[in-house]
Parts: sequence; C-alpha cells; structure tokens
Amino acid sequence: MISSDSGNIKTVEVCFSPALIHLHDVSSSVVVVIDILRATSSICVAFHHGVRSIVPVASVEDSKAYREKGFLVGAERNGEMLDGFDLGNSPFSFMDPKVKGRDIALSTTNGTQAIAAAGGASMLVAGSFLNLDYLSEWLIRQDKNVLLLCSGWKNSFNLEDTLFAGAVAERLLPHFGLNRMRDAVLASMHLYSLAKDDLNAFLEQSSHRKRLEKLQIEKDIEYCLTPNLAPVIPVLVDGALVNMTA
Amino acid sequence: MISSDSGNIKTVEVCFSPALIHLHDVSSSVVVVIDILRATSSICVAFHHGVRSIVPVASVEDSKAYREKGFLVGAERNGEMLDGFDLGNSPFSFMDPKVKGRDIALSTTNGTQAIAAAGGASMLVAGSFLNLDYLSEWLIRQDKNVLLLCSGWKNSFNLEDTLFAGAVAERLLPHFGLNRMRDAVLASMHLYSLAKDDLNAFLEQSSHRKRLEKLQIEKDIEYCLTPNLAPVIPVLVDGALVNMTA
Repeated sequence: MISSDSGNIKTVEVCFSPALIHLHDVSSSVVVVIDILRATSSICVAFHHGVRSIVPVASVEDSKAYREKGFLVGAERNGEMLDGFDLGNSPFSFMDPKVKGRDIALSTTNGTQAIAAAGGASMLVAGSFLNLDYLSEWLIRQDKNVLLLCSGWKNSFNLEDTLFAGAVAERLLPHFGLNRMRDAVLASMHLYSLAKDDLNAFLEQSSHRKRLEKLQIEKDIEYCLTPNLAPVIPVLVDGALVNMTA
Repeated sequence: MISSDSGNIKTVEVCFSPALIHLHDVSSSVVVVIDILRATSSICVAFHHGVRSIVPVASVEDSKAYREKGFLVGAERNGEMLDGFDLGNSPFSFMDPKVKGRDIALSTTNGTQAIAAAGGASMLVAGSFLNLDYLSEWLIRQDKNVLLLCSGWKNSFNLEDTLFAGAVAERLLPHFGLNRMRDAVLASMHLYSLAKDDLNAFLEQSSHRKRLEKLQIEKDIEYCLTPNLAPVIPVLVDGALVNMTA
C-alpha cells in the first residue's frame, strides 16, 4: 500500500503541532488545518448551512471590529463561548438559520491559531470528519503536496486531530508518496487503524475529551466524530474561508 | 490500567520533539532523553563496557577541545562517523576494550541536541531499549514526575523513539498518573502495543530506518531494538553523563 521514497509523485506529510510547522515546506503544499474538537468541525457545519464566509481572527478584540462591519462573531476560549458573542464553538450553534448567507469572524483557542501558523501555504483548507471523504477526493484532484496540520491543544499533540490525519492519509496514500517526514504519517495511520471502528470509545481517555466532558458537550463530540455529514471544501481566499463547492 | 487525572501521584508525559519541550515543566521532572538510533543506545553500551563518563557536546569543534584534554571523541552527522574521530555512533564501536575507564566527548545529530534542550530538568537520564526494564524500575523508585523526551530527527517526530516512550510508559503507568499532556503518552502506548511483538518489522517503513538502510547498519538497528542488554543508568551530573549503577 505504501509507496517507497517518492520520485515525481506528490507527497503527504503530517505535522502534530503548529509549533513544528517550520520543519515543513508549505510553500508548494495544500495545508489541511485540523481542529476536530471543534473549530474545523464547526467551520464545515457553518458552510453546509449556507454561511458565506468565515474570517479566522487571532484575538477576541479583532472579532469586535468585525462585528461593527456587520459580521456575526464567534469566539471560544478554553472550550467555552465568550460573553457578548453571537456564536461559540459548538457545531450546533452554526446550524441556526440566522447564519445563512452571513459572514462570520471566528476566534478559537487552537483552530484559528493553526490557520495563522500555516500562512505561507500554497493553499489552505479546513478538514474534519464531517467532510472527510469529500475533502480527500478533492485533495487527490489538486495534484499538489499535502500537509495535514493538527492544531493540537495549545501546541501540544492531541489524539483526535491525529486520528483524522490518519483517516485522510489512508485515503490519499494510494495516490501520494511518503518522504523523509513519513513517520508522523505512519503513526497517524496506525492510530487511526486502531480507532476507526469506534472513534468515540478510542478517545475515552484523551485529554481534550476529558476537558470537554466537564463542559457537558458529549453531543458535540459525537457529532464531530461522524464522517461525511457536511460535503464542503472551506478554502482560505484573501484572508477568509469560503466554500469551494458552494 | 490508566488512572484518571492525577492527584498527588507523580505523572508521566511524553514529548515528541526537543522543539516542543517548552510546553512541559521540566524543573521538577526526571527527563529521559531518547535517541534509539543510535545515540542513547550507544551511551548505554558504553557504560556497560566500563566508560567512566560521557560529555555531550553540541558541536564537532567542541569535541576537538576535549580530545586535547585526553578524552576519546565520538561524532556522527547524518548517520555517519566523522573523519578524525575515535568513535562513531554505532553501539558496536563502544564495545571496544579501549573505551574502558575512559572519558568520552560525544556529538551526534539529534541525541546531544535533545540533552541540551532538556537543560532545565531536575535530573536527566539516557534511555534506550538496552536499559528498558532497569531504567523503568529506577524511574519508579525516584518518586518524581517523568518526561520521556524523544529526540526525533532534526526536531521532527520519529517512530522508534516513540515506541520506546510507549514501552517505558506502559511500565510506569501502574505507579504514575496522567495529566492534561496525556495524549502523547496514550499514542506512544498504542503504537508500542502494535509494535512490541516485532519492533524491527514494525519499523520497516520508518524514515530513520530507511535512512540507515543506505548506510548498511542493519546489525546496529537490530541491536538497538533488543531490550535489556545494558543494565545501566546514565545520569547527567555537572555536564557529564555517569553511570549511577557503576
């Protein structure tokens, strides 16, 4: 299944933390930003429910400026929605009919930071289990190197982002090669192979899971681990995510 | 098997890259530096064969100064021994009777860099499959938090260091707790559980393995993956590794 050192074929890499992205050459790559719990999952849901654009903003202060321009504003820190904002980070909050056709400015603990870290990418797209197969097929068609960037939790490794990277890598590998950065790809795929029959059970002991348990968002987690509910391709264009399939 | 969020009991963490060590508080931890292929494996072999001390040096230039002080000097870059040095990075070169009772200055691509990165640790010890059980039992007796630091390859994730971290974590967990940095521990243990029946076969596709294949050191790799051949505890004291069991 796994091809040896790639010649001319495109390669897939996995990066476990935005703090390690400097080890990868992203200038000729499509970077898939992954924040399963819950930024990139919510982004996919938003576009599936007709949001027009999502601007990732680094700080809560920046969000406020967007509100004055007519944007809906979403912000989450440490897993909770902030006071005075229209939207939190739950995928369900992005299913509200009020989001249809709107522009959103979104700030989250990890996801929007990862998007910022991947600034030099040739192209940037948001990935989650919700657009897994659709995204994988789209990546295969791009004919570019792919870097799967796990947002992690405050730059540390996390399991759910890694499992998703493994799921995408498994779908891409018949068409892509591996290079010297292959070990993270192999690890992700091995972990996904262990987890895929029951992602929820596999993540039972994980840190983010434990953190969110305290916030009573079990329903969010189950939703975010369900494949293919939102066939969208959220791509960053001029600083805003837009849905390429809209 | 896995205890929940730890109260007063000591914790075990895994760090996948020296470039992420700032995410961990090492000031109250024993840091286990891991560079399976091959620095920390060779360090264990050296002490098992009677070396008195090993000074990790960052640069090849620094090594030369130690030579003038009567040290044997070892240096490797990109997997190969450098010209004009007494020792390379193969565990077999440290079995030579000439090493007995000697002091060695050692510079390697990844291992000595990881030792430098862990400078703020309460205590630093070198780990490899060669001292796996002996080290794990020693760590349990220390009653301190443990950070398993994978050297990786030029700061990127690698599989063989991760498998060793998983092996140690498996041995420590009945006695230690997990904290919010638990996901890397869980991932390491899952990967080790997949690999442990045949580490060599599991690493068949790994990047360092492929790199070293070209250097024809299959014998080194097999040796470095063999548990418990060198019952030593190489601890850093005043800038030099010494064997606590000597």
